[in-house]
Amino acid sequence: MPHGNAVIGQSGGPTAVINQSLVGIVRGLKQGGFDGRILGAHHAVAGIVESDFIELQDLPEDVLDRLAATPSSGLGSSRDKPDAEYLRRILKSFQENDVRYFFYIGGNDSSDACRIIAEMAAAEDYDLVAYHCAKTIDNDLMQSDHTPGYGSAAKFVACAFMGDDLDNRALPGIKINVVMGRHAGFLTAASILGRENPGDGPHLVYVPEASFDLDTFLADVEKVYRERGRCLIAVSEGIHDADGAPMAAKLAEASGGVEKDSHGNVQLSGSGALGDHLANAIKDHFAKKDEKVRVRADTFGYLQRCFAGCVSEADQTEAHTAGEHAAKHALAGEHRTGSIAIQRESPDADVSYARVEISDVAALTRTLPERYLKGGNDIDDSFKDYLRPIVGELPVKEVL
Amino acid sequence: MPHGNAVIGQSGGPTAVINQSLVGIVRGLKQGGFDGRILGAHHAVAGIVESDFIELQDLPEDVLDRLAATPSSGLGSSRDKPDAEYLRRILKSFQENDVRYFFYIGGNDSSDACRIIAEMAAAEDYDLVAYHCAKTIDNDLMQSDHTPGYGSAAKFVACAFMGDDLDNRALPGIKINVVMGRHAGFLTAASILGRENPGDGPHLVYVPEASFDLDTFLADVEKVYRERGRCLIAVSEGIHDADGAPMAAKLAEASGGVEKDSHGNVQLSGSGALGDHLANAIKDHFAKKDEKVRVRADTFGYLQRCFAGCVSEADQTEAHTAGEHAAKHALAGEHRTGSIAIQRESPDADVSYARVEISDVAALTRTLPERYLKGGNDIDDSFKDYLRPIVGELPVKEVL
Repeated sequence: MPHGNAVIGQSGGPTAVINQSLVGIVRGLKQGGFDGRILGAHHAVAGIVESDFIELQDLPEDVLDRLAATPSSGLGSSRDKPDAEYLRRILKSFQENDVRYFFYIGGNDSSDACRIIAEMAAAEDYDLVAYHCAKTIDNDLMQSDHTPGYGSAAKFVACAFMGDDLDNRALPGIKINVVMGRHAGFLTAASILGRENPGDGPHLVYVPEASFDLDTFLADVEKVYRERGRCLIAVSEGIHDADGAPMAAKLAEASGGVEKDSHGNVQLSGSGALGDHLANAIKDHFAKKDEKVRVRADTFGYLQRCFAGCVSEADQTEAHTAGEHAAKHALAGEHRTGSIAIQRESPDADVSYARVEISDVAALTRTLPERYLKGGNDIDDSFKDYLRPIVGELPVKEVL
Repeated sequence: MPHGNAVIGQSGGPTAVINQSLVGIVRGLKQGGFDGRILGAHHAVAGIVESDFIELQDLPEDVLDRLAATPSSGLGSSRDKPDAEYLRRILKSFQENDVRYFFYIGGNDSSDACRIIAEMAAAEDYDLVAYHCAKTIDNDLMQSDHTPGYGSAAKFVACAFMGDDLDNRALPGIKINVVMGRHAGFLTAASILGRENPGDGPHLVYVPEASFDLDTFLADVEKVYRERGRCLIAVSEGIHDADGAPMAAKLAEASGGVEKDSHGNVQLSGSGALGDHLANAIKDHFAKKDEKVRVRADTFGYLQRCFAGCVSEADQTEAHTAGEHAAKHALAGEHRTGSIAIQRESPDADVSYARVEISDVAALTRTLPERYLKGGNDIDDSFKDYLRPIVGELPVKEVL
């Protein structure tokens, strides 16, 4: 293994367990006999190019324990998408700081950045080991059964729907909850985990894997409402029409402003517009029939990714262990690059941690398998078998 | 004590612990030797007039335990505001079903209904004991130090802000979170409970007890943003201008529709409009200076009142004990009516459960004491001393 220092960065949207992976890498390096400096990059790539680092190798164990349990990216994050010039500056910083190990905790954009830097280093004969450590509440990485961060966000969504279904039962009406998820419906699908009895909600679930049609939606909602006197609906923020145009982007355009990030993604979260639009469409639909119906919409927004105190224990353990495996593979030296993927033979099986090629993860998106999509407006209950070990036990409920 | 049956109703917005009070009343009646039927009114007053009851006296202890732990109103709730004719039908139902004890779990509107029914019964010489058991996440009842339901909702708000402050620290920008609270800012004030270090958010807090001015707000936000490079803001849904007009209602009027409930209250929750409006105002403010700032808004909505698995243990215990006390006072027969109020000499003291006159609670609203209001845009840290025993310990956090 090359001698030198290590840099760890945390990129993209934070999660409730991303610091578990950070601490896992630190501990994995120290357990593996690494004796260089372990530098946390402040705000990811932005900190690397500025040589803005936090030294982590001497943090006491109790601080590491508390840091691991703290939600969000303790090092700070970034949404910068590094271009070729930016990537050259990163490599230059690595050379100046004698960085020989780079760990990047993030989603598929981050894994791609990791891969390109490794290639640039190789082209310059600079000895660099670069590992990607998966993180995303979207659960949308290829090669993984599930990703660190998803289990805790899924627990939040499941607990929120469990409570809100009981709320909607007590004060009946039509209720829409908008859940994060641009391309993948895994997080929205978690809304069904608390469904135990035939009448339990959500009664309708819309994910980006099925195209969304407003008229069909209104007919679905009316049907459930006529049958049950109430209707609880889960909607992914990324739902789109048959042409692939996101509903949220269409709304933003209609109201004059579309905000895009450096990856060209239209802003979906941090606004209640989609939920409000769907609620108004339902109100109008019933108003045409001279009926006044109680319709409400909530948008879970940023709460679902870093809520303190609603964390899946399995997710915590797995995020930490994935970090340790990243360090172990990096130090082993067999492969200069790799990504750590959590795999599972079946929902009942124990998880394993595989090193996979970054190119099999980078810039790719995994979506909800078709077998879980039920008629374009629901999720099959078999998804609960997949999800339960990832989330853990939900609180009890007793319905009179 | 009169012989006959008992009716229990749950009214208004549900809470995470309202079933604790229901079960507390059932257990209190049985412990006190009550041998009539204990009837749960399905959907509150609506169920009473239809004689739509659920028998509760024979439920096994393990079912009562699980029911108590289940969020939202297990009997179903109602927002009906009974008029004189409705109230006469309630009394008629009591007479037909030989109901001699009435327990109404709810906020100040519910206590008023309880009082009027008791007066009508007395006027007809019908022997009726009617007790109000306090419940409201708004914490806005007179005679109470705090109310059942508040502690758990406050815990949700505190945990949400704790995580979201770490999120905002990782990806800096301006973030608005809209919290429930029409007239009282207690729930929004809970946003500060996780604030430990000088830089921790929320950095600005707006409650209905101080009038809201958009220009002052924009100046406040800019000041914090210039100082810290980020700004986390807590806003009550009930903020209003100096004339008392709620901002949310003004927005709803501007967009064409104002929805009011049977109490004449304008709909505030179940829409992201207020947060989106404030976010757009901030974006425009900076755009005028040719600056593009990341601004996001989340509206906590209904999640904060019934979220499964984020419950204050003190709140659970107190809601249950308040129910037991309601039953005890009702059976003791010294007073035909009363309301159970949780009282506390000081934040460090144990709570006590007082029987107070319904007329001292009914149709009155308690607001945040002025000593906690800090400059119209923050909450004094001494509020944390008041709140901590009500919420319990928050999750740990470690900031690098």
